[in-house]
This record gives sequence, structure tokens and C-alpha cells, in this order.
Amino acid sequence: MSDEIAALRAELAELKARVQVNEDYRELCNLQAAYGYYVDKGVWDKAAELFAEQGTLEIAGRGVYVGRERVRAYLKHLPPYGHGTIYNHMQLQPVLHIDSEAGTAKGRWRTLMMVGWLGKEGRWGEATYENSYVREDGRWRIASLHGIINFYCEYDEGWHRGGVKLLRSIDGLAPDRPSSIDYEAYPEPVIAPFHYEEV
Amino acid sequence: MSDEIAALRAELAELKARVQVNEDYRELCNLQAAYGYYVDKGVWDKAAELFAEQGTLEIAGRGVYVGRERVRAYLKHLPPYGHGTIYNHMQLQPVLHIDSEAGTAKGRWRTLMMVGWLGKEGRWGEATYENSYVREDGRWRIASLHGIINFYCEYDEGWHRGGVKLLRSIDGLAPDRPSSIDYEAYPEPVIAPFHYEEV
Amino acid sequence: MSDEIAALRAELAELKARVQVNEDYRELCNLQAAYGYYVDKGVWDKAAELFAEQGTLEIAGRGVYVGRERVRAYLKHLPPYGHGTIYNHMQLQPVLHIDSEAGTAKGRWRTLMMVGWLGKEGRWGEATYENSYVREDGRWRIASLHGIINFYCEYDEGWHRGGVKLLRSIDGLAPDRPSSIDYEAYPEPVIAPFHYEEV
Repeated sequence: MSDEIAALRAELAELKARVQVNEDYRELCNLQAAYGYYVDKGVWDKAAELFAEQGTLEIAGRGVYVGRERVRAYLKHLPPYGHGTIYNHMQLQPVLHIDSEAGTAKGRWRTLMMVGWLGKEGRWGEATYENSYVREDGRWRIASLHGIINFYCEYDEGWHRGGVKLLRSIDGLAPDRPSSIDYEAYPEPVIAPFHYEEV
Repeated sequence: MSDEIAALRAELAELKARVQVNEDYRELCNLQAAYGYYVDKGVWDKAAELFAEQGTLEIAGRGVYVGRERVRAYLKHLPPYGHGTIYNHMQLQPVLHIDSEAGTAKGRWRTLMMVGWLGKEGRWGEATYENSYVREDGRWRIASLHGIINFYCEYDEGWHRGGVKLLRSIDGLAPDRPSSIDYEAYPEPVIAPFHYEEV
Repeated sequence: MSDEIAALRAELAELKARVQVNEDYRELCNLQAAYGYYVDKGVWDKAAELFAEQGTLEIAGRGVYVGRERVRAYLKHLPPYGHGTIYNHMQLQPVLHIDSEAGTAKGRWRTLMMVGWLGKEGRWGEATYENSYVREDGRWRIASLHGIINFYCEYDEGWHRGGVKLLRSIDGLAPDRPSSIDYEAYPEPVIAPFHYEEV
């Protein structure tokens, strides 16, 4: 009978590992969604806290910012939220691959962006994220956020009359490392590298 | 050996509780998504059935409607679906926190809205939901749906030329309670309260 | 004591079945999201590989294409991705019902489409999918993808000035079966059939 108990115990341990992945899926979805809500409204400190201590951020070919405090500094160079501001970064369409035992994960997401300032510019944009995540002190955090811009266009023009050139740097804040990939957004074709061969 | 069996039983019970949360996550995502599909097409009775018996609805600062039948009445005051109508309420970006044992949950979502009538108005809109849910007769239902409008704008103008004022009431249907929060949508800044401090 | 072990074993088997459904949910979400990313960028072979061997595709009333190779042929008749192309098919809002034991599932999704070519047309579109899935060789694949177009409109006009007529056929590639439902997109009303009565 002790064999049977040992077998049960092993089966239970295996099942527990599978349950963990499902839990991690929920938490990773919450995490990325939370990031979007904070970015929308310029809640930069809260957004920065979602990154791992050594987490990195790389957006739009502006180079890589390394470590949570550098991510925070980057975010605080983005436009503040306030009267007449729309800075929506909707987060959708996850493809997540999780290694629960290792405490690491990779995720492809996309953001649909609506950006604008009253009486000034109004733009649509859309980007693919290829992110990685790490479990740190028991919580999932963003290990690397990499946003590859597919396009920005002027609301008044639409994407069929041309894209807006990427802004390649943040005033007064040089990156810690150069961009990991070189590309131009629309009208140039760009396909964000996939972290997976198969789903 | 009975100690070992007791230990296994306890471990299994604990795991079962964790599995339940994962199941609830799926059901809550299905529930909110289903709400969106019904609203798109004016399937008001089906939408109302997704609310708990004591469920509430509060949208755009028009006050709180209390109980499924009042929610149904509210929904039936919205425009009917038909020829020349677009009333899309896309549901995305959940941040869900679930207490499976208590049978309660809270969820932040967003809706991207495309609204219009042929030959009349066409509008973009976007709102944050801060909803709560309850398990009732074994099924998850909406305990409170609270939509905080971030903006509406005319399709022909875009968000950079101004927002559309919120319609503060439904003709002929006074709410049961005043609005729980006071705000103006874009161009005023608005941040829907968060149900969570951390994710 | 062997009764207690038998009871534990039964309980564990039951729980395992529930965990399987949660796993399947993740895999199905990954699958449909992956489809969208491939379609965006004209990665047709990868998109075709997501279909079951006998998988079918039916979009916009152009009839049903039966079997993975016919799906591949259909996809390869769509516009290639390249300079000046936007062909975004964002995938969101799943309502999923899964029969893990049978290895089958049904899902309602929606796609928000941004389509255009530099210096030519630019369009918004939105469709509902009512898809089915099957587990094949241990992996979930698309058994049937059925996209019902709610609307297309010209970016320059908006949906309040009229929709774009559906293109009812693919040049040089007749379907294997006629359309399963007959409808017109906006401004006509269209409600994609629901695979569920209740959520």
C-alpha cells in the first residue's frame, strides 16, 4: 500500500506543477494588463514597480534601459497625463509560454495606441511586444519589455497616406545599451521576431 | 499510514481550491466577453441575464441602477440594433482578482467603442470598467458593472479636437442611487479608481 | 484503508480533468492569438499550420475551404505583406467552451481590422469569429474558422457614411462548399450565430 501512496504523491506533485502554470498565466495576464492601465494615465511609479529589479525596457528603437530605476527614469520622460491628454495603450492578444519551475516566461502581446493632445496632434499607433517575465520574490515581474512599433499615423491622414517617423531618442536620457534590433516602422515592413516556433 | 493519507487529502483539497480559481478566471472572462457581444447587437435580455439578481449598473455618471430588472430596463432604453447601426463595445484587458471561496471577484476591463448610425453620428469611445462579480446558483454573474468613460469623440474630428460631453441621464428612467463617483470625461483627466494596490 | 486510497485516486482523476480544461484554455488562447499575428504579416504557411488536417475556413461569405491545404491556398490568395502594407487582424474577446475529454472546443472571438496600402485604400473593419477547435496529435488546432464580417468602412468616411460591400469571392479560387450562412455586412444588421445559449 505504501507504493500506492507513493504513486499518488507523485501524481499529485505533477498535477500541482500543472496548476502552477495555469496560475502563472492569470498572473502574467494581470501584470501586462496592469502595465497598460498605468501607462494610459501616466502612473509611472506604479508602472515601474511592475518591472523586475534588473528589468529592461526597449521601445521604438530608442535603445535599452537596464534596471528598474532606469525604466522609471525613462517612463518619467514620457508625457504627463492631464487635461486634454489621451495616451491609451490597450493591451491585447497574448501568446504566453511559461516555465513555471524556472520562474520565467515569454509573451507576445500587442498594443493599440490612441495618442493625442487637445488642439495638437492626434495619432493612431500599433505595436507588437515581445516580452519576458521573471518570478521575483514570489511575484511575476517584467524582465524585459520590448515594443516594436508597427505603425503610427496621423488621425487626420490615416495609415493609407503614410506613417509617422519613429522618434529615435528620449531628450536628455541616453540608453544603457543600443537597440537589440534595427528596423523602420510603416511604411517599411516590420515583423517583430517571434519567441516561438510553434504554438 | 493514515497520517500520510490525511496529508495527501489535505494537499489535494488545497490544490482543488487553486484549480477552482483558475476555472473561475475562465468563466469570468467568458462572462464579460459575452456581455460585450450582447451589447453590440442590442440583445438586452441576454445581457441582463448576466447580472446577479441584486446586480447593479452604473455608466457614464448616469447614476446606479439596482437589481437585474432595473438593469434590464436601463439596457432597453439604449438604442435598438438594426439597419445602419454600429454599437460595438469591445471588451479587453482584464485585471482579475478572485476570491473563489467567498464566491466574489473584482475585475478591471476596458471597452473600446465604435458607435454610429448611418447618415448621422459616428463616434469613437473608450471606457474603463471596474466591476465586481458574484457566484450565484453556481454561476458567476455581474454584481456591479461600473463603466467610467475616458472619452467619446466624433469620428470626423478625432480626439485631438475635443471630446463629446457625457449624456448624464437616460430619458424617462431615473436611477435608483446617485453616481458613486463624480467626473468629467476627456478633455478632463479621469482615472477610474483601481480595485487593487498591487498585481 | 484501500477504500480511502481509491477515493483519493478518484478525486485526483477528477481534478486532473479540471486542470486539463484550464490548460486547454491557455493553449486555445495562444492558438487564436498566434493566428492573428501570422495573418497581420502574411505569414501564410505558419497560419495554415494552425489548422487541423481537415480544418475549414470561411470568411465574409466567400464559401467554405475544406482541409489544411485548401486553407493554405486561400490564405496565399490574400494580399502579400510588404512595403506600405497594413493588414492588422487584432484578436480579442474570447468566449470559449471546451470539452477536454472529447478534445473539442468552440470559441467566439472578434477581430478588429486595420487594412490599407500606402497611397491607396485605408479601411477599418470588424468581424465576429465563431470557431471550433480540435486536439490533433496532442495539440489544439483550428477545426473551423468562420469569420462573419460586421462591417468594413473607408477610413476617410467612417462607419456613419456607409460600409464597404463584401467581396464575395477570391479570384481564381472557388470554394469547396457554399457559405454556411447568408448575410450582408453593415449597413445591414448581422448577428453571428452564437455557439452558446448561456455562459
